[in-house]
Amino acid sequence: MVNNVQRVDDNWRTCTKSDSSGKRNSGGESSKESSRSSTPVLAADRTERLRDKMRRRTESGDHWFSLEFFPPRTASGAVNLVSRSVANTNLPLDQAYGQSTFEMEIFDRMGSGGPLFIDITWHPAGDPGSDKETSSMMIASTAVNYCGLESILHLTCCNQTKETITGYLSKAKHLGLKNIMALRGDPVGADWEEEEGGFNYATDLVKHIRCEFDDYFDICVAGYPTGHPEAESYDEDLRHLKEKVDAGADFIITQLFFRTDTFLKFVRDCRAIGITCPILPGIFPIQGYQSLKQLVKLSKLEVPEEIMQVIEPIKDNDAAIRNYGIEQTVGMCRVLLESGNVLGLHFYTLNREVATMEVLRQLGLWIEDPRRPLPWAVSAHPKRKVEDVRPIFWASRPKSYIYRTQDWDDFPNGRWGNSSSPAFGELNDYYLFYLKSKSSKDALLKMWGEELTSEQSVYEVFTSYIKAQPNCAGHKVMCLPWNDEPLAPETNLMMDKLDKVNRRGVLTINSQPTINGMPSDDPIVGWGPPGGYVFQKAYLEFFTSSENVTVLLKVLKKYEPRVNYHIVNVHGQNTTNAHDMQPNAVTWGIFPGREIVQPTVVDPVSFMYWKDEAFALWIEQWAKLYEDESPSRMIIKYIHDNYFLVNLVDNDFPLDNCLWQVIDNMFELLDNPPEEQPTEQPAEQPAEESPVEDQPTK
Amino acid sequence: MVNNVQRVDDNWRTCTKSDSSGKRNSGGESSKESSRSSTPVLAADRTERLRDKMRRRTESGDHWFSLEFFPPRTASGAVNLVSRSVANTNLPLDQAYGQSTFEMEIFDRMGSGGPLFIDITWHPAGDPGSDKETSSMMIASTAVNYCGLESILHLTCCNQTKETITGYLSKAKHLGLKNIMALRGDPVGADWEEEEGGFNYATDLVKHIRCEFDDYFDICVAGYPTGHPEAESYDEDLRHLKEKVDAGADFIITQLFFRTDTFLKFVRDCRAIGITCPILPGIFPIQGYQSLKQLVKLSKLEVPEEIMQVIEPIKDNDAAIRNYGIEQTVGMCRVLLESGNVLGLHFYTLNREVATMEVLRQLGLWIEDPRRPLPWAVSAHPKRKVEDVRPIFWASRPKSYIYRTQDWDDFPNGRWGNSSSPAFGELNDYYLFYLKSKSSKDALLKMWGEELTSEQSVYEVFTSYIKAQPNCAGHKVMCLPWNDEPLAPETNLMMDKLDKVNRRGVLTINSQPTINGMPSDDPIVGWGPPGGYVFQKAYLEFFTSSENVTVLLKVLKKYEPRVNYHIVNVHGQNTTNAHDMQPNAVTWGIFPGREIVQPTVVDPVSFMYWKDEAFALWIEQWAKLYEDESPSRMIIKYIHDNYFLVNLVDNDFPLDNCLWQVIDNMFELLDNPPEEQPTEQPAEQPAEESPVEDQPTK
Repeated sequence: MVNNVQRVDDNWRTCTKSDSSGKRNSGGESSKESSRSSTPVLAADRTERLRDKMRRRTESGDHWFSLEFFPPRTASGAVNLVSRSVANTNLPLDQAYGQSTFEMEIFDRMGSGGPLFIDITWHPAGDPGSDKETSSMMIASTAVNYCGLESILHLTCCNQTKETITGYLSKAKHLGLKNIMALRGDPVGADWEEEEGGFNYATDLVKHIRCEFDDYFDICVAGYPTGHPEAESYDEDLRHLKEKVDAGADFIITQLFFRTDTFLKFVRDCRAIGITCPILPGIFPIQGYQSLKQLVKLSKLEVPEEIMQVIEPIKDNDAAIRNYGIEQTVGMCRVLLESGNVLGLHFYTLNREVATMEVLRQLGLWIEDPRRPLPWAVSAHPKRKVEDVRPIFWASRPKSYIYRTQDWDDFPNGRWGNSSSPAFGELNDYYLFYLKSKSSKDALLKMWGEELTSEQSVYEVFTSYIKAQPNCAGHKVMCLPWNDEPLAPETNLMMDKLDKVNRRGVLTINSQPTINGMPSDDPIVGWGPPGGYVFQKAYLEFFTSSENVTVLLKVLKKYEPRVNYHIVNVHGQNTTNAHDMQPNAVTWGIFPGREIVQPTVVDPVSFMYWKDEAFALWIEQWAKLYEDESPSRMIIKYIHDNYFLVNLVDNDFPLDNCLWQVIDNMFELLDNPPEEQPTEQPAEQPAEESPVEDQPTK
Repeated sequence: MVNNVQRVDDNWRTCTKSDSSGKRNSGGESSKESSRSSTPVLAADRTERLRDKMRRRTESGDHWFSLEFFPPRTASGAVNLVSRSVANTNLPLDQAYGQSTFEMEIFDRMGSGGPLFIDITWHPAGDPGSDKETSSMMIASTAVNYCGLESILHLTCCNQTKETITGYLSKAKHLGLKNIMALRGDPVGADWEEEEGGFNYATDLVKHIRCEFDDYFDICVAGYPTGHPEAESYDEDLRHLKEKVDAGADFIITQLFFRTDTFLKFVRDCRAIGITCPILPGIFPIQGYQSLKQLVKLSKLEVPEEIMQVIEPIKDNDAAIRNYGIEQTVGMCRVLLESGNVLGLHFYTLNREVATMEVLRQLGLWIEDPRRPLPWAVSAHPKRKVEDVRPIFWASRPKSYIYRTQDWDDFPNGRWGNSSSPAFGELNDYYLFYLKSKSSKDALLKMWGEELTSEQSVYEVFTSYIKAQPNCAGHKVMCLPWNDEPLAPETNLMMDKLDKVNRRGVLTINSQPTINGMPSDDPIVGWGPPGGYVFQKAYLEFFTSSENVTVLLKVLKKYEPRVNYHIVNVHGQNTTNAHDMQPNAVTWGIFPGREIVQPTVVDPVSFMYWKDEAFALWIEQWAKLYEDESPSRMIIKYIHDNYFLVNLVDNDFPLDNCLWQVIDNMFELLDNPPEEQPTEQPAEQPAEESPVEDQPTK
């Protein structure tokens, strides 16, 4: 265990070195080059830096919002905060199984409402720059890399050396973070004194960032609408703010306030002394009596009398306070937005969803846009900003794909084949991190069977998952080792077919139907900008026995060249009728004024890497639920050792998907093997020769 | 004039220098890299070297053929031999107009039958390595670069210094030639003696090529089925041949012979002494009495008695001799192919088409495959082997496009946007070469009008061209400055629409209809490998007056965002609703087991380069037909100075092409300008708001 972690650390250091040479930087930032090679679908939102996004939204007059989170205190809190299956790296397997409910996934849920950015606070006492899953650094990295959220990392400089700060910033840059909230932070102890050449004020940190990292980071600084508690005067504090902006800050987020006039006066005063950058109001929806009191204590703010008068009488009624907080916040926000001085609202969420989401919904700012820029979740890492092609194999495990490709220097843009030969991260480097389920061991045993008696009982787990129905023990199967989530809506369309084939041991783990030119804003299969059309070749990927594969290969001969296949077992024994280096595009889209986009391919080279992961999941997630040498474990082990992983593509997308017919033909041949037929009957030859046109009899 | 030529020469030298640094070489030859980045459609034929193509064809048991040409003696011969508009660089304008009929274009015509390669003989007396359009070097370069033919350049070494030979080879490599036929050549004068360390035999040349250029070239050598006339014996000659092969030759083409036994024995004898490479029989269809006698004299061969007996009596009847030659050759070839020892036949064409084509047709080897690998003619230059995206603007001027991009280091593969910002060759470097018409001045005046009286008379030239009908003077208009050829078949489908709009001064120079998933083997619009589907967005490009453009822009507002447009005049004044850097794919194809191919795009940056060429053609090809200051010239000049070049794309390819409706709407608005309508009638507002759905009234 320790060894694994050590190895990750070593990798990290190696990467940092190549980073400091400046080489990593050179590619993406030459403006002309990158604007020509930018991905055609993802336009501005993905390639712009935060300050430019903000300017563009301001110019277009859109209202928008952002969300602040603090790093969780515990590992299970990290799992709640970020999404599934990306936390608990350092926990032993059993502990990881045992401890968490994974019910919240706040980032994925709150990210779906469309914040312009999120920000993660910096807790000097909590080892904020470490690799621990609860550190500010790691939480921000996860938000960017795995959740695809534009993120700001807070950073405090008080009592820190320049070397430490530079180290944090280098690490942040390496992880793909592009935005820093530069803060002084609270001095440790009462005897703090200004230090010559040290970090005495946030201004020093802003200057340091610009000096050491030039224009790489977008920098945000804090504004105090009622003046900083330690400042000599409101006016002196405004002058300090002006210094921070002049030193290179790009925009300002204010401390919370309870009256809109406070903020609007502050903005006027800032403008009066020449501060021209965006100023975002910090909005604090009151969510409870205790949290309000604690906050007031920390921020040295006074809660206005009119608010205390409402709250005091209901202080023990959490729901009532929250409802009041929502109403009061919505009112404030309306005034701010209507003032014309405010386009974006920054919310102090306290890591709670309900109040902020409700405020945003009432303001009409919470927009769950079902349109996806690409059919898979994009990462916000700057290296990946042009990425628009991925192998289809990781469709249900996007975070594993991001993790295994995180060391690539370039990402496929436009065509998979243009990228250099893929070098996927080794399985052993990350398997505890990525191969374990989000559910507890107990929950998994309930879903996947306390005791397996045969391969058939494994098939039943698959069919229960597909039908979203209880298994024989009465438990719903909500996930499989290869699918953390219930079936995708488009897969749902094929549920009956999937159910039928899984019953007979064609254990499907990935599939997509044929799509021949559906509008890009179709709620189920659409993606990309409006006004376009999306297409798919039918795809089916499954495990099945070697007996089935022998018959399947006979059937597939009749579907040449319409169907491409790759069939491989855990040992790498590989059969295919496809070019061994040429990817097959299986999802693509045509949009107004753009080049063609083909976000998913079946790539023969990547399939060999995926194969290792797909087979390992049998053992790591399923077999290990059972005692060593137990019959249940042996059954999974048998499947792992003897089954083949098969993928099929139907190239003829304008016709009906023929892959189900392929599987049906395989079952027919299994049910009626030629040698059992009387010799005088000449083995359905005609039908076999042209199965596609003739629809062979069932 | 002289200055221009000098400049071209300077460029050439600069390029040679960068070549010798080896930099040019590094990209394309790393095998793994290039096999992954190879273009998905064009598979083996385009990326393989000749010897591998030959081996693949041999392994698959296909029969194939190749064709030998000699360089023409005169410039007009060069024009006949190669294709239109790529010769006569050095001729003054008037002379170029006056001299040629351009009727044959043998390369394009004989290339269409599918030769595996062609070869160009080397004439030491004809300055074979020079830049003259009649040189062996230039003819071979044209075949490769502009006609897309795999080509072998002959090279003789006798009496040459190593420096001279290396210079020729470097130049050949720079021009994209990859195959050399290594020959000794005839000694000059009778007193030739072996020279120590010099080129005494073809073997020396083979060794020199391998020594100086490693494996870059495929090398062919000559075989003499009856022994070389100067060899001491047949056996000694066989040993010389073995030496040539051992020195590094890849295959053998034999001297002509009249009896199949001669060749078959020769092959047996070669195999017996360990020559294992391919041996291609040189086939000479007898085409006339004089040419036969001359050839026999040169090659010191004896014509067998049985052939002379047939020919002598008919020696003054060319047609009879040719018919006999065809019959005799077909018979020989059948025997050779049926022997199983011969898969490829090499034809000495004597630059004449008829006999060789007829032989090939009778043998079933002449296969005019209407399937195109891409919708435009590909170049065989090795640098361009992955090229599969081009701007649509040069669709009718592919050779101009190849010329203007010849200095690029990389060519777009998969996506246009991935290539660096295009730097097109300057117009002044090549305009005499590329802007002049293939037709004589007299022919052009007949087609385009001896005298123009108004802009309307220009419109009539366009409509005559489109309808392929005689103009008012009774002459058919076969070409326009922007279109050397009659309308493409797919454009023909739109003839009536084109006719209608040209009549009113929408002077179309490029267009394509909407295609929504036609089979890739469709005879009119198909391209690419079988089993695929091709698509197009409708495209229309035309010149029109500024008055029309003013109204057109009003109309186009109603077609946002369905129609993208670029509108520019000769001064570069530019109006567009498209992203200024983002190309729009207008042709694409989906194929089994491949990535998406999008061979043509509307690229905003390239359009500005094309605009210069398109406007210049008005002056260079058309205005200059007339006297300075003549009314005809002034009319063309007026159009050049005042008209706009417009391109339109209909993004909604699954619907009917709306571009004709756009033009119709423009005409309607021109006919009924809003200000002329009585004010009480509220200007068809509803129809204008939704013209696409509502089909506004005519």
